[in-house]
Amino acid sequence: MFSNTTTVEIQFGDCDPAGIVYYPNYFRFFDNATAAMLSAAFAMHKRNWLDHYAIAGIPMVDTGAKFIRPSSFGDTIEIRSEITELGRSSFGVKHTVVRDGETMIEAHEKRVWVVRGENGAIRSAPLPDDVRNLLGAA
Amino acid sequence: MFSNTTTVEIQFGDCDPAGIVYYPNYFRFFDNATAAMLSAAFAMHKRNWLDHYAIAGIPMVDTGAKFIRPSSFGDTIEIRSEITELGRSSFGVKHTVVRDGETMIEAHEKRVWVVRGENGAIRSAPLPDDVRNLLGAA
Amino acid sequence: MFSNTTTVEIQFGDCDPAGIVYYPNYFRFFDNATAAMLSAAFAMHKRNWLDHYAIAGIPMVDTGAKFIRPSSFGDTIEIRSEITELGRSSFGVKHTVVRDGETMIEAHEKRVWVVRGENGAIRSAPLPDDVRNLLGAA
Amino acid sequence: MFSNTTTVEIQFGDCDPAGIVYYPNYFRFFDNATAAMLSAAFAMHKRNWLDHYAIAGIPMVDTGAKFIRPSSFGDTIEIRSEITELGRSSFGVKHTVVRDGETMIEAHEKRVWVVRGENGAIRSAPLPDDVRNLLGAA
Repeated sequence: MFSNTTTVEIQFGDCDPAGIVYYPNYFRFFDNATAAMLSAAFAMHKRNWLDHYAIAGIPMVDTGAKFIRPSSFGDTIEIRSEITELGRSSFGVKHTVVRDGETMIEAHEKRVWVVRGENGAIRSAPLPDDVRNLLGAA
Repeated sequence: MFSNTTTVEIQFGDCDPAGIVYYPNYFRFFDNATAAMLSAAFAMHKRNWLDHYAIAGIPMVDTGAKFIRPSSFGDTIEIRSEITELGRSSFGVKHTVVRDGETMIEAHEKRVWVVRGENGAIRSAPLPDDVRNLLGAA
Repeated sequence: MFSNTTTVEIQFGDCDPAGIVYYPNYFRFFDNATAAMLSAAFAMHKRNWLDHYAIAGIPMVDTGAKFIRPSSFGDTIEIRSEITELGRSSFGVKHTVVRDGETMIEAHEKRVWVVRGENGAIRSAPLPDDVRNLLGAA
Repeated sequence: MFSNTTTVEIQFGDCDPAGIVYYPNYFRFFDNATAAMLSAAFAMHKRNWLDHYAIAGIPMVDTGAKFIRPSSFGDTIEIRSEITELGRSSFGVKHTVVRDGETMIEAHEKRVWVVRGENGAIRSAPLPDDVRNLLGAA
């Protein structure tokens, strides 16, 4: 299925008093990585594909991460993201953080394709066929 | 003019590898302190006064801070906020961060009262009289 | 086993353009909640128990969260935290986020008890007996 | 004096419910921009120049920003940073945020060159001659 790789240079302010990345920041990196992957798949910026598909977003319903090795200020990490699953109105993502060839973190996400209903509330909607095709392509 | 004091307990993740508060986080604390001060003045939550006054927000147009002494994980700081100025469609705020009686930071803000125009764009609007009275009260 | 409840008032800046909490911020809340739980169990601040037990920290090795309902600016959420498991040099935590009696999020953590070795590197260490007793107490 | 330009692509999570960058995040961007400027001047990464000059950091003592126009998710901003002043043990920085040729923000910083004394406390130290030369170069 579709995959994409981004890089992040760890900044001073991403790290905590132990000198390593404060782990909630990884979820920020992963959110950016998923947005970048879909932007690559759809060949348009997230700002545009939200409009193009008339969706309210792709909220997270389930995520997790296994932290194998810590990263520090000044490290450059690669985030290898891939689609792992295409549901009716949801999709799965896997992120592998790699530094100098070593796996640092393994993370997964389940996100839902949502639209805003007439009452303003958010509800899930089926993945459009072209989204399914683009995300399902190798 | 109106004033209000809030307290913040510095968390581990608020601090950087030097072991002190990563300074951008203070601006997050100050934004919360200003919201709390207006909520105290208006006797309703920010969520409600945004609706009540039909405004789009109180965006920052000018801010600054003088960092006199650093704070660390586990410190509890007091943020003493006060209105310093009431313009036609803007207001000034001063925050003084105090720990154990010592002044740690002095900060100031200028914020604008904005509404959303018919085209969706934001524009400044005059401070309503009751806002002026409530914020101007000692 | 030991449990503790904290509350968080969702701030404007905790939320994203969709108007709901930007999910990485929940992990910041959970990190604070775990620190608060251990501080309650040990009857001293994290700053003190890091020193008292001569540890370098309690780094996260595995975490996950299931987001059931979103929270927004102005909501007050309860985080009910409890110890779920006591390993040789690790422990498990479960966080349940509740708002107005409804479960909003279920999250889990696995953390390791680590000391700094002579070379400056971090390594896991057995949970001391009194830590095991305090965290294991109902 | 020395200057350097970096670019930042505004991410979804950098923005608040008003749909614009949550302003404390700009200070994070500015901190990264100053680190990048010194790394360019010293021709080594911040991680290395902290070691090379045996300093504890360059803590902020005074900063301010004037927000002229807001930026939103998906915008790419340029941060043009320059040294404005070289004191005995401090230096000034100016950041100009530009988007599509328009000035969005003007910010300034004063930072101190600090070392860690024998008692572990931080104290200011004179800027070394080569630092003065490198930062003072056009």
